[in-house]
Amino acid sequence: MPTVEEVKTHDNEEDCWIIIHGKAYNVTDFLDEHPGGKDIILKYAGRDATKAFDVVHPRDMVDHLAEENHLGDVEGDMEAVAPDDADEEDEQTEEEIKRQELISLKPDLSKILNLFDFELVARQIMTNNGWAYYSSGADDEITLRENHLAYQQIFFRPRILINVSNVDLSTTMLGCPSKLPFYVTATALGKLGHADGEKILTRACGTSGIIQMIPTLASFSFDEIADEAIDGQNQWFQLYVNSDRKVTERIVRHAEERGIKGLFITVDAPALGRREKDMRSKFSSDQDSNVQKINEKESKQIDRNQGAARAISSFIDTSLNWEDIKWFQSITKMPIILKGVQRWEDAVRAAEIGCSGIVISNHGGRQLEFAPAPVEVLAEIEKFLIFVDGGIRRATDIMKALSLGCNGVGIGRPFLYAMSTYGQEGVEKAFDILRDELEMNMRLIGATKIDDLNESFVNIKGTGKRTIPNDYLFNSVYEPLGSSNFKPKL
Amino acid sequence: MPTVEEVKTHDNEEDCWIIIHGKAYNVTDFLDEHPGGKDIILKYAGRDATKAFDVVHPRDMVDHLAEENHLGDVEGDMEAVAPDDADEEDEQTEEEIKRQELISLKPDLSKILNLFDFELVARQIMTNNGWAYYSSGADDEITLRENHLAYQQIFFRPRILINVSNVDLSTTMLGCPSKLPFYVTATALGKLGHADGEKILTRACGTSGIIQMIPTLASFSFDEIADEAIDGQNQWFQLYVNSDRKVTERIVRHAEERGIKGLFITVDAPALGRREKDMRSKFSSDQDSNVQKINEKESKQIDRNQGAARAISSFIDTSLNWEDIKWFQSITKMPIILKGVQRWEDAVRAAEIGCSGIVISNHGGRQLEFAPAPVEVLAEIEKFLIFVDGGIRRATDIMKALSLGCNGVGIGRPFLYAMSTYGQEGVEKAFDILRDELEMNMRLIGATKIDDLNESFVNIKGTGKRTIPNDYLFNSVYEPLGSSNFKPKL
Amino acid sequence: MPTVEEVKTHDNEEDCWIIIHGKAYNVTDFLDEHPGGKDIILKYAGRDATKAFDVVHPRDMVDHLAEENHLGDVEGDMEAVAPDDADEEDEQTEEEIKRQELISLKPDLSKILNLFDFELVARQIMTNNGWAYYSSGADDEITLRENHLAYQQIFFRPRILINVSNVDLSTTMLGCPSKLPFYVTATALGKLGHADGEKILTRACGTSGIIQMIPTLASFSFDEIADEAIDGQNQWFQLYVNSDRKVTERIVRHAEERGIKGLFITVDAPALGRREKDMRSKFSSDQDSNVQKINEKESKQIDRNQGAARAISSFIDTSLNWEDIKWFQSITKMPIILKGVQRWEDAVRAAEIGCSGIVISNHGGRQLEFAPAPVEVLAEIEKFLIFVDGGIRRATDIMKALSLGCNGVGIGRPFLYAMSTYGQEGVEKAFDILRDELEMNMRLIGATKIDDLNESFVNIKGTGKRTIPNDYLFNSVYEPLGSSNFKPKL
Amino acid sequence: MPTVEEVKTHDNEEDCWIIIHGKAYNVTDFLDEHPGGKDIILKYAGRDATKAFDVVHPRDMVDHLAEENHLGDVEGDMEAVAPDDADEEDEQTEEEIKRQELISLKPDLSKILNLFDFELVARQIMTNNGWAYYSSGADDEITLRENHLAYQQIFFRPRILINVSNVDLSTTMLGCPSKLPFYVTATALGKLGHADGEKILTRACGTSGIIQMIPTLASFSFDEIADEAIDGQNQWFQLYVNSDRKVTERIVRHAEERGIKGLFITVDAPALGRREKDMRSKFSSDQDSNVQKINEKESKQIDRNQGAARAISSFIDTSLNWEDIKWFQSITKMPIILKGVQRWEDAVRAAEIGCSGIVISNHGGRQLEFAPAPVEVLAEIEKFLIFVDGGIRRATDIMKALSLGCNGVGIGRPFLYAMSTYGQEGVEKAFDILRDELEMNMRLIGATKIDDLNESFVNIKGTGKRTIPNDYLFNSVYEPLGSSNFKPKL
Repeated sequence: MPTVEEVKTHDNEEDCWIIIHGKAYNVTDFLDEHPGGKDIILKYAGRDATKAFDVVHPRDMVDHLAEENHLGDVEGDMEAVAPDDADEEDEQTEEEIKRQELISLKPDLSKILNLFDFELVARQIMTNNGWAYYSSGADDEITLRENHLAYQQIFFRPRILINVSNVDLSTTMLGCPSKLPFYVTATALGKLGHADGEKILTRACGTSGIIQMIPTLASFSFDEIADEAIDGQNQWFQLYVNSDRKVTERIVRHAEERGIKGLFITVDAPALGRREKDMRSKFSSDQDSNVQKINEKESKQIDRNQGAARAISSFIDTSLNWEDIKWFQSITKMPIILKGVQRWEDAVRAAEIGCSGIVISNHGGRQLEFAPAPVEVLAEIEKFLIFVDGGIRRATDIMKALSLGCNGVGIGRPFLYAMSTYGQEGVEKAFDILRDELEMNMRLIGATKIDDLNESFVNIKGTGKRTIPNDYLFNSVYEPLGSSNFKPKL
Repeated sequence: MPTVEEVKTHDNEEDCWIIIHGKAYNVTDFLDEHPGGKDIILKYAGRDATKAFDVVHPRDMVDHLAEENHLGDVEGDMEAVAPDDADEEDEQTEEEIKRQELISLKPDLSKILNLFDFELVARQIMTNNGWAYYSSGADDEITLRENHLAYQQIFFRPRILINVSNVDLSTTMLGCPSKLPFYVTATALGKLGHADGEKILTRACGTSGIIQMIPTLASFSFDEIADEAIDGQNQWFQLYVNSDRKVTERIVRHAEERGIKGLFITVDAPALGRREKDMRSKFSSDQDSNVQKINEKESKQIDRNQGAARAISSFIDTSLNWEDIKWFQSITKMPIILKGVQRWEDAVRAAEIGCSGIVISNHGGRQLEFAPAPVEVLAEIEKFLIFVDGGIRRATDIMKALSLGCNGVGIGRPFLYAMSTYGQEGVEKAFDILRDELEMNMRLIGATKIDDLNESFVNIKGTGKRTIPNDYLFNSVYEPLGSSNFKPKL
Repeated sequence: MPTVEEVKTHDNEEDCWIIIHGKAYNVTDFLDEHPGGKDIILKYAGRDATKAFDVVHPRDMVDHLAEENHLGDVEGDMEAVAPDDADEEDEQTEEEIKRQELISLKPDLSKILNLFDFELVARQIMTNNGWAYYSSGADDEITLRENHLAYQQIFFRPRILINVSNVDLSTTMLGCPSKLPFYVTATALGKLGHADGEKILTRACGTSGIIQMIPTLASFSFDEIADEAIDGQNQWFQLYVNSDRKVTERIVRHAEERGIKGLFITVDAPALGRREKDMRSKFSSDQDSNVQKINEKESKQIDRNQGAARAISSFIDTSLNWEDIKWFQSITKMPIILKGVQRWEDAVRAAEIGCSGIVISNHGGRQLEFAPAPVEVLAEIEKFLIFVDGGIRRATDIMKALSLGCNGVGIGRPFLYAMSTYGQEGVEKAFDILRDELEMNMRLIGATKIDDLNESFVNIKGTGKRTIPNDYLFNSVYEPLGSSNFKPKL
Repeated sequence: MPTVEEVKTHDNEEDCWIIIHGKAYNVTDFLDEHPGGKDIILKYAGRDATKAFDVVHPRDMVDHLAEENHLGDVEGDMEAVAPDDADEEDEQTEEEIKRQELISLKPDLSKILNLFDFELVARQIMTNNGWAYYSSGADDEITLRENHLAYQQIFFRPRILINVSNVDLSTTMLGCPSKLPFYVTATALGKLGHADGEKILTRACGTSGIIQMIPTLASFSFDEIADEAIDGQNQWFQLYVNSDRKVTERIVRHAEERGIKGLFITVDAPALGRREKDMRSKFSSDQDSNVQKINEKESKQIDRNQGAARAISSFIDTSLNWEDIKWFQSITKMPIILKGVQRWEDAVRAAEIGCSGIVISNHGGRQLEFAPAPVEVLAEIEKFLIFVDGGIRRATDIMKALSLGCNGVGIGRPFLYAMSTYGQEGVEKAFDILRDELEMNMRLIGATKIDDLNESFVNIKGTGKRTIPNDYLFNSVYEPLGSSNFKPKL
């Protein structure tokens, strides 16, 4: 049982202990593997990191540390190891005061008419860090925007004089019934938007009959989220494959035991993307985006010393490849879906090796810049279980994707914004909005059930004739041409 | 004969009486069928609703109530049942004072050079409610704008050295002569723009030799509008099909008896579209847009309890389908035209079952978002009696539609704006502007009569290579990328 | 010899005399034929109109009046018939004072780097009337802007390693040598920009070896302009065909006698276009744009009385047609060129009936809105003597047109702006700028003489994939969608 | 040995001596050949020009003057020949004071996240002259912007489930190993951005394993730059061919002796382009852009006198043509690459005559306006050693070019901006940024080495469907249409 004084001496990169919930941990070896970067841990080296830890992490995350690094309960006056910023938190910045005021003035939920409204409120009342983390995309965010804008190149071909008295919006995805043809896709770090984070999404899905995909990088532990589900509520699981396959195997088997109905293996993120908006935010020391800063530093040092080839941390396995899928098939009976397919050749291969389906996705525009908009890839692929995510904001977007052959769509950020602004009630309202829009537009297009939708309802001739979204950085540095000037008035 | 005191006791949703023009009505059963929503009625439960009623409704609309709900003349001091807002109306809001001032400063009619000018004036001097109701469209209003902008992708191929001394702009539509190749299409709630509402349009059409299509949802009764016509003036009738076919039959037979020359059955509105601009306006308690609010509430409750399938109010028959058209043919000899066709397959079917023609229309962009611009659908359809409406603002728009094979175009909002700003004189001026533009441009294109126009006069290669209109909501929530900042100056 | 007192009594529409340069004229019958409208004449009915007349008209224009309307020298005190605005002119408006100041501060000519610079200066120092008249186009001015923007869809395919030490920019058009491959095309009312108006252009063309096309509607008489030419200077003549063919014949024969080398018959203007920018300017009472106002008034009256068919004034012959071209061939040996061809069918016909060539032109975007950009029509037409005008601002525009098969380009407005801002020196500078740009870019593209240019130098694949210019009026009346609002801070 | 007094008498265009580093030179005959124009020299006629000379020129540049013009050391008090502006330099303009302040506040290098950040900082802290010279392009700068924007029409087709643990970014170009698949291309006048100019680039290339292309128009002498290289560092040489072939031969042979690995002959600049932004800057008297002013003046005089054909100065040989390439092959064994090819026909010819490769380039948009974007030309050309430059700002741009078949890309301006803002450390940081972006995106696209990249990774269907960049000048002179105005409030 280490004493407070003992802990305090392990306060550097070569020898780093921290205290979480009254227990000490030796995290020296873990520093380089921390997805959030080592800087944020080092800030608490030799001190109590509980508060910062709880802001983003599930409590059981410390269990992943090797047994020998669990040092046991700390003895002594914890005040002595309080972090440097312990006081700071009590005095509010001017920015925070303004944010609190905006929170008190936010529109009534009844005034929220569409998913954009949630986002607009979120942009103003979320913390800078949270907003920047949720909203950012890769490079110039062209793919991020194109994801949505590509839907606008598609027009409908509505039918008339169809009896649309009854419209049935329910569907079945991977054998799971869903009241609406979309699911809540996996997104990381729910606590950045709401203290109850991912649990909020679980509860709203429960009341509304919507499927939730649980993320690997949630702010709560897998079990905490799974426990939140009501009887008969279906959940899927999104997996980042860890280089340590034992860890991965344990996670997958546990998910299956808990009744997870689908395993979505993320294949578009062998490395976590750079997101400059996030990097520029004041997200200075506390969260995941530090991955990027650290990587940058390392890459500089490593590259100078070792040349261009280098390995990144073991958290995400950069070596993941087609052979590994067979292994997954050997350890689980859950249907396996590849999340992040972006070209038809890979869809064909996924089918050939026995995957149950794919998600056409570019990770919400957060990974590869100039990855194609998913709805455009959709037109390339035929006859397979296909989900699509990215850029969906309106029922019409959903209907376009379904008409083009996909079996359900994933929606992520909009529900995060609803959660961050109005909690569970907000997420349910977001579902309601989409249901109302769907029902209205199904009637107007002349379709009464999800299966009615097919290619005859859409005109995709405009696809690919896109206007690329504004290149803000290029335009901000380009100096417009001027004309000859009149002489100054004396 | 109910007394004032008696009426006052029936003041809630389960038991609701209101007074209109001195007579009491039991509207309890009607609450759910009111197109404008029950909220606005409940505001006057147990009270005198005359003033609010007259703002939008024709006096005879109460006749539709079942006999047993007509309770007769009310006895007693009507002051006792005056509505809560009786006083309010006397004191003007700041906004209203500003509006009145703008009305006094509006440009002379001689300064109005094109149809946009009417709209600009209307936007400033109409009530918020009226402007929002007339101007709004579905979702992001992309179809609303595309309706007009699609015309701009079409260029002319003018001929030269044609003797154009005389230009004849007259034509015949459904056997009715018209001095100009357009008609005033049906639009609802004319009183929102002018106390004389639809009658204004009738009078202007009379003096100018233009055909008017009378709307089902007019602010005046069908007869009031029909009575306004002069000898020999041709009118058509637009029909929303009521679930109660007896009501529908009565309306249709009456229209035929009154000499209506064409029956335009609306087929693009099995449900009334959501229009967010309208919902956001202060249109809080008084008019038709409440349909939307109510539906939203209901849908939430119903959906939670009964699942996704639900029926909406009986006012518009959501079950209307191709079979019903035969029934219409059995009850009337008027030519039947389907208003709201949006794909060639439906045009073919309309012809096969003996309809006289179609209107290619997306309801002015007010119903299905991403419905195609009518002028683009026009190119799909051949050899049928075709009208087109939506987005027409210039004579060149009309000439493009006519060149592509349509037989006449419908124009709606521009005449509402002319009516709302300058009354009958304004509408006549709007006709004059279009005639002058038509005459000028027919000369310049090298055509001397409407029949001269054909596909050789237009270049439609640019069609479909569109730039989608600004996505205001998406752009308002998207946060542009920033650059690195200079340090603050100390 | 009428007296001042006598003249004063003829002061109305039914009996209208005016005084010009001391002589009285009976213009009662001419009122309806005045291209500038009767209103401006009636303003001076019974008075001395000399000052207003001289602002835009050549002195000999009164000769066109029938002999019997020439009433001879006026006797008496001319003060008594001074126009109402005689005093006004002495006191300057605030606007005029500002304009005079800007004139004094205009950039030195050496600071003018391109043709846009002239236009920017002109926009600020020209009178409102002059600027509006020169710069305006039809309807929404989409064709006006498309004329220029269409050039920007064309890219070059430059050749390298060509000896470009010497670049010869001279060419021959209609047998006339020209130092540069463009000519100054006909534009009306030169005095609006400079007191010496069209003479300025003649002088600059003389010193620079450029061909000028003399306009029918010049501010100086044909002879005044022709007299300004130096020995050997080539001029062409642009003709509006008058309904009175005797007048036309006299004009054409006279032009031939004076040595005019080409007769350009305008065929794209059977009526003068409506230009709203011009109509909105304060151009209230003095000039040609009143054509439009008058026409509007008349059209209203006439149409109400006589139906849609009507004839406009005899000034421009609306009956002009292909048969008439034969007559022109019978009265002149000058080569005849049709100015305003806009489709290949008409080019073929022009060739078949023996015209010497065509000008692909849409009248600078001032007549038919949505007429195609000339450079796009150019690609339709083969093997004929072709000129092109409209939208040319850079040497690269000229080189694109020449590469696509035209034999020379006409430039109008830019030279008017140069003339209006810096007089003859300005026009010569404009020529210099174009020559410098041409020489530079001929070298850079790898061509050493005009004949080198051909289709292999341009990539026109982008043509027609245009982005339509901003629809200012539509956008100004469209109200953007809003979002839900935060509550007001108390 | 001339005296100070003697030098002072040679102070005009016909007889011009100047003093540089204490020695007098007779530059009378050289005036017309000075690339920077004669005006700047004449400003120092009869005086000491050392300071102005050193700002842009390498010290040995005076060696190019003929022997007889070297007049030897000057005797006497140099104060007597101090230039007029000697004092000026000590007092700072307001603008310069502001610039110095901005320099002191510039962001820390660690805050620079992408190449645009360097440019934004440069735009604010560089001198006007330097910024205008580096950033400007031809005419309306459409090609300049299109160079970059064309990349944005290309989307990726990423592969998944590829083992990307190790990514090798190294490559070989012209036999020279490079750690990254780009080189620092030749750009002129490095001292405008940094006192150590091109040497900075050499040093950064040395530490980072990047190839530098030495420019003919460097601010330091060829040897000064070559001397800066470390052992084994590879450099190429960019050549402007001088009309005096002896000079050219001497330069080429010297470069080969110094170990230069590739000779890049510029073929897209038979004349130096006009760049209006540069001309409008206050670049009034000191640098290279005066070429343009002088040319303009001369062209006016010459053209008036001698007609359109004229020769420009001998500095750049306008007669350079395909035959000359053979001569180069006879005087050097260095691989010869043509820099500035812009159409496939010329690429084929270059291959046929034995060139080692080509650079598809339009000189950074500084020469021919409407030259095609290099990445679009790339798709035309097959199987040849191809480099591409112009508009590259992101790793994704590089990967697109490499996927389309090029062997390496040249980057110019971004490194100039990095150099001008943060010196050598800035340039190295720029390399680091590109390496990090490359490594990240290679992983995300599913490629582990440069050779993996091929056409299957890109979707170029959108190419050529471009939106032309804003035409600033056209738009600045175009006056938007207005609407009818409300009357003024009294």
